[in-house]
Amino acid sequence: MEFRKPIPLHSAIKLTMEHTPLLEVEEISLHDSYHRILAEPIIAKHNIPPFDRAPYDGFAIRSEDSAGASEQQRVTFQVVDHIGAGSVSSRTLGKGEAIRIMTGAAMPKQADAVVMLEQAKLSEAGDRFTIRKPFQQLENVSLKGEDAAAGKVLLEAGGLIHPGTIALLATLGYAKVKVARRPVVGIIATGSELLEIEEPLVDGKIRNSNEPMLQAQIARIGVPYRSYGKLKDQLDDCYNLIKQALSETDCLITTGGVSVGDYDYLPAIYEKLGAKVLFNKIAMRPGSVTTLAVLDGKLLFGLSGNPSACYTGFELFTRPALLKMMGANKPYLRHTQAKLSENFTKANPFMRFIRASITLAEGRARVAPAGFNKSNAVTSLAHADALIALPGGSRGFSEGDVVDVLLLGTEEGEREWNL
Amino acid sequence: MEFRKPIPLHSAIKLTMEHTPLLEVEEISLHDSYHRILAEPIIAKHNIPPFDRAPYDGFAIRSEDSAGASEQQRVTFQVVDHIGAGSVSSRTLGKGEAIRIMTGAAMPKQADAVVMLEQAKLSEAGDRFTIRKPFQQLENVSLKGEDAAAGKVLLEAGGLIHPGTIALLATLGYAKVKVARRPVVGIIATGSELLEIEEPLVDGKIRNSNEPMLQAQIARIGVPYRSYGKLKDQLDDCYNLIKQALSETDCLITTGGVSVGDYDYLPAIYEKLGAKVLFNKIAMRPGSVTTLAVLDGKLLFGLSGNPSACYTGFELFTRPALLKMMGANKPYLRHTQAKLSENFTKANPFMRFIRASITLAEGRARVAPAGFNKSNAVTSLAHADALIALPGGSRGFSEGDVVDVLLLGTEEGEREWNL
Repeated sequence: MEFRKPIPLHSAIKLTMEHTPLLEVEEISLHDSYHRILAEPIIAKHNIPPFDRAPYDGFAIRSEDSAGASEQQRVTFQVVDHIGAGSVSSRTLGKGEAIRIMTGAAMPKQADAVVMLEQAKLSEAGDRFTIRKPFQQLENVSLKGEDAAAGKVLLEAGGLIHPGTIALLATLGYAKVKVARRPVVGIIATGSELLEIEEPLVDGKIRNSNEPMLQAQIARIGVPYRSYGKLKDQLDDCYNLIKQALSETDCLITTGGVSVGDYDYLPAIYEKLGAKVLFNKIAMRPGSVTTLAVLDGKLLFGLSGNPSACYTGFELFTRPALLKMMGANKPYLRHTQAKLSENFTKANPFMRFIRASITLAEGRARVAPAGFNKSNAVTSLAHADALIALPGGSRGFSEGDVVDVLLLGTEEGEREWNL
Repeated sequence: MEFRKPIPLHSAIKLTMEHTPLLEVEEISLHDSYHRILAEPIIAKHNIPPFDRAPYDGFAIRSEDSAGASEQQRVTFQVVDHIGAGSVSSRTLGKGEAIRIMTGAAMPKQADAVVMLEQAKLSEAGDRFTIRKPFQQLENVSLKGEDAAAGKVLLEAGGLIHPGTIALLATLGYAKVKVARRPVVGIIATGSELLEIEEPLVDGKIRNSNEPMLQAQIARIGVPYRSYGKLKDQLDDCYNLIKQALSETDCLITTGGVSVGDYDYLPAIYEKLGAKVLFNKIAMRPGSVTTLAVLDGKLLFGLSGNPSACYTGFELFTRPALLKMMGANKPYLRHTQAKLSENFTKANPFMRFIRASITLAEGRARVAPAGFNKSNAVTSLAHADALIALPGGSRGFSEGDVVDVLLLGTEEGEREWNL
């Protein structure tokens, strides 16, 4: 029997990322860019805002004309023009003159302060108003470039494009934006025990839950996939299917078939393909059999057939690799720390990842296991929004211990981990 | 001039949710269900796992036959059958007999323990092995129903369908799943200052960043939208466009045109439509002009034209309403608390929401403003992954104060807020 030497988690991640190719850059419409990865730094092409403007509805005045105004000695202004947002007044303000101005409108020439509507007492005809306090230069004025000065680097390449990013890109006139092409991921399930979802249960068999689960994990990072069904029993058929899938995709995921049991034939297929196996045993639970091979610069992830192990293997290795292919600068799951709300007294030489539920409500985060905790468990996956990471070693962990936690299903990630 | 009385945030949220309709339920393929909302509770239709099975590769034995085994006095078993995962042995084990069994395979009749491969010393021919310790009843056996017993309610209606949910649904044979129909959201921008994204800047004008931003905010919760362009200057044209949009969508968002300035005509349109205005002033910044009207059971959100105010108004009011339409049980942004890393010494009578960046790395979360903080700011939106919520009142806030924080871009939400 084959003996496999487990490598530490961080070595497996390092090997994965070192062998992950970067995909080409393409230019797409801003309207299609949500959840893509920026492939260029974003520089302010002009000032934001591009001109001095009124942040409130009111009256643009020359501040010097307001000098000496008080409750007892109100100062009167004559309204000589009205401008809406988007319009520019052709008037140049003279002494004691004011221009009615809307939120967002450009400041008229000579005007250097805005009297808010509620600060003005309007005449009945609306052509005059009085104020009861002096206004300082630039009072109630949004200055050109105060949000961002022209030329400033506002976003670095590699960031996820989220709604706030899109607001900024639109403001700067990026109708098109450079992003990395998205990898196409192939999925192949193995295992003669697998039924289709719609099939009734048969003694000894279970339904294929890994494939739809992986499809959703892939969709969660905005990446398309192709399903190649299940591997057949004949080695040649398997070889041909994997060969075809590799030619049509950027990255291939298989589930199951990676143990050292008699019926697990992926290792033989890797050999026949000439793929280089980077690792096939990791000092972690679940998912110790997670395998990574590489052929012609393409990654072949061999994930466990056990649902929880498959899920964890994807999140720890495949997800960061796919994000790195797109140039993401934060490819790893978001990390935090939290207090354990349960004992894990049994020590384990391997690092453990426990599907968990995190509570953030009280300032200090707490995590609890999300239920039944075996590598073949599935219900806990449905209740997990985090993974607890317990380092391997000779000691257990107790309620109240502060432990590392990886968050699932958040937009924001981490540049690196120190697990 | 119209005087508007601001209502507290919690009243505005309550009014919004009270007037939000629930949409019909539809049945869709599990493969299309990622990010939808469950419209039925999920009950274990059968035990998970559905039969006793081997969690490891090894040999199924009768535990009684292992009694007395030790290093000195190894006990020998005869391998009488091989079964792969998905197969069922036709053999009934006799005394001293064992069946080679793969991970996930059903336990053979009479077998009640599994000797892991590494616990067995195999004969050269592979037809016999010895063990050096006794095995207990059910040792290394995954029991039928240990993950979930048949009949147990596993998920309640209203939960977001994420990859872990899909794994569970597939396991239980839900090829189709009942979800709420998704609302179709219409977007109309107002403001004569607005240029298209691809247009060059003109004095006094800015580009329409709110519409693509809102499209992404809507896409972030998996909801489709229709764009109706910009409102024209003629009241009748506006009225007709809004009337048409309302007939084609479940919910309408307008941006801009909701202040009390002379050029803001949405209030007149609401009146002409016969829509009931639920609120048009909220004691919050930014977004105090956020307006909600309702007509024939459909919500018309009038969001501010200022980017940060528009963004915040969507996240606080429109997002939970859209999620509630789909029956979500956690429609509100995820809440946590964190230490302020900056002073906010100036008091504000209104509740403030500050675009922020949250750091989770050290066990206790810290938040810092994500940059320039005005309602018309846009760069801070691109750097924010959270909103700091500072209650209104007569005092400021200091570095180190623990404050409420709402997380942006997370799958998981809250059932309610206590802001």
